[in-house]
Amino acid sequence: MEVQQVLHMIGGAGETSYANNSTVQERAISKVKTIVEKSIIDLYCTTFPKSLGIADMGCSSGPNTFLAISNIMEAVDQKRRHLGHSSPEFRVFLNDLPGNDFNNIFKSLAGFYEKLKQNNGPDFGPCFIAGVPGSFYGRLFPTESLDFVHSSYSLHWLSQVPPGLENRPGGVLNKGNIYMAMTSPPAVFKAYLEQFERDFSLFLRSRSEEMRSGGCMVLTLMGRRSLDPSSRECCYPFELLSQALMEMVSQGIIKEAEVDSFNLPYYTPSVQELITVIETDGSFHLDRHEVIELNWDPNDNDNNEDFAFNKLTRGRNVAKNTRAVTESMLANHFGELIVDDLFKKFGENVAEHLTKEKTKHVNLVISMTKK
Amino acid sequence: MEVQQVLHMIGGAGETSYANNSTVQERAISKVKTIVEKSIIDLYCTTFPKSLGIADMGCSSGPNTFLAISNIMEAVDQKRRHLGHSSPEFRVFLNDLPGNDFNNIFKSLAGFYEKLKQNNGPDFGPCFIAGVPGSFYGRLFPTESLDFVHSSYSLHWLSQVPPGLENRPGGVLNKGNIYMAMTSPPAVFKAYLEQFERDFSLFLRSRSEEMRSGGCMVLTLMGRRSLDPSSRECCYPFELLSQALMEMVSQGIIKEAEVDSFNLPYYTPSVQELITVIETDGSFHLDRHEVIELNWDPNDNDNNEDFAFNKLTRGRNVAKNTRAVTESMLANHFGELIVDDLFKKFGENVAEHLTKEKTKHVNLVISMTKK
Repeated sequence: MEVQQVLHMIGGAGETSYANNSTVQERAISKVKTIVEKSIIDLYCTTFPKSLGIADMGCSSGPNTFLAISNIMEAVDQKRRHLGHSSPEFRVFLNDLPGNDFNNIFKSLAGFYEKLKQNNGPDFGPCFIAGVPGSFYGRLFPTESLDFVHSSYSLHWLSQVPPGLENRPGGVLNKGNIYMAMTSPPAVFKAYLEQFERDFSLFLRSRSEEMRSGGCMVLTLMGRRSLDPSSRECCYPFELLSQALMEMVSQGIIKEAEVDSFNLPYYTPSVQELITVIETDGSFHLDRHEVIELNWDPNDNDNNEDFAFNKLTRGRNVAKNTRAVTESMLANHFGELIVDDLFKKFGENVAEHLTKEKTKHVNLVISMTKK
Repeated sequence: MEVQQVLHMIGGAGETSYANNSTVQERAISKVKTIVEKSIIDLYCTTFPKSLGIADMGCSSGPNTFLAISNIMEAVDQKRRHLGHSSPEFRVFLNDLPGNDFNNIFKSLAGFYEKLKQNNGPDFGPCFIAGVPGSFYGRLFPTESLDFVHSSYSLHWLSQVPPGLENRPGGVLNKGNIYMAMTSPPAVFKAYLEQFERDFSLFLRSRSEEMRSGGCMVLTLMGRRSLDPSSRECCYPFELLSQALMEMVSQGIIKEAEVDSFNLPYYTPSVQELITVIETDGSFHLDRHEVIELNWDPNDNDNNEDFAFNKLTRGRNVAKNTRAVTESMLANHFGELIVDDLFKKFGENVAEHLTKEKTKHVNLVISMTKK
């Protein structure tokens, strides 16, 4: 296992001009892209398969849906041109939960095929895209049908809220919190870790049955560098969201019991926790792992040292991103009516926090080969 | 090629009690089911494959979406149990145009998987279902990935309105009609047949690349027994729809030019026309073909000889069925506002027609093996 050094994505002297002018977010995406491309090209060059089965797990439905598979196919296409080979056939599978807007993806398909031909020439592909609805915490694909599996920003979502958090004989376990927090008792951290271990090992077992030997997988997910699961780098955004909810409790808008009974089905593992599950499963060889830090506000450029500048805009940007991935769960539990107000308060809390401290999100990237 | 005799589905003396009590529609569905089951079981018993790739072309989104694939898988499952084999893996692909409501299908999937296990026991499958959006008049699946292809009530829809029907130097070709009709000039029949031949041969060529040698395909589509393409059995429903449109022209609700410029992308081939395209393509061996006649009104029971009884209900039933498959095209061309009125008039025309003559739809069923 090649252990990569932790990457600090903060700009500094000696950075190239591109790096100095790009945002942290862009550089992180570009870093992950490099890892994905290296992995798919290594795979392609090992056996030069005539047909490549590629799955994107948690593809969502939006401007980024085609981004990963497009990068993966274009990397192979460039390599095979360079080597003078004819194109392999790409079998592409887009996976997400059955509630995902697949109709929207499918309506963009004709345009995507057109763009692939335009960018890569008429001898690109062929490429066959299918939608595969269902939870990736279980089997989704036929046995040994996949060569390459990709997943980005999905695996930190658990299959369910860890059981036992709210209904215990001794009362509510995670009082006043909606995720692991500084004030959470040890049983909360244990319940979250155990749920993650169950889910991630089920993910690995399912993929190991679906992937051929020698197949590769690159996963990007939210996580933490620290061994401490209550570390600010992974928990603080949701502590600020809890605070906004508790403000609404104090204003009588929602009930405290509603906050107590809400917990996010989410987990931010450490690299070591990931490695432990991978080693216990035993079907994959871990080729590479990296830690990438990202500013909370993706529009925040590290070269701008004036943290106080435009703080409300930054708070709003962070609130918008957090809302995009949590709104449906929050609306489902607390009702749709509170959501606008909640994220306004949350944005203000974030803005205030960012004037004091530049907390960063931690992304983990792991690259594996099926034994 | 085993040429089956034309089936007259009219009840008579000597019919079993079941037949006497079932509607024509049920008996036709049951007939097609028998052909499909025979085909898939023959295929399964030839090589006992461990994995079966099954595609339903034009699966739509509604109560019948899972019917065909469910029958196909259950037929295999019964056979393999009888033989004491373990279940093959079912790779199921549901295809329709990208505008089809796949979200609706995907939301029913969990219930469908549950029902499969309930009906067939816990050792059924596994079964992996994917959605494949796109026109079946072109490649959709990887090379030699399919064992069995099914399509029901889809292949009479052309990829486009035959070119040249409305904009010709000599003026409108198919004046006052929306499909081939008694009054259509020969060039209209020629244009329709040529479009069908182009489309169906593209369908066959695409499937022949996607199917493995020995794979089977069963297709059901609207057609005709007669060699005459203007035969009432295939054209008359749309002649009555044209009449309803022309009534609206005479009432000043729509313009005659609008009717002249509308033609349905639809074709009802004869068995001989199908066979010609299949033989020209040359990749498939035609195992069997049948003609099944169906009453216009699926609720009409042939044992009831009183054609005048409840004629308006029958007209409405026919109008409802025709509306389901043509509404979006008509609304797109003539505007949504005229649709209710149009199908009310059409239903009345149908009711009047059914008091004089019991016209039937003709369905063609063909079963083929990939050479």
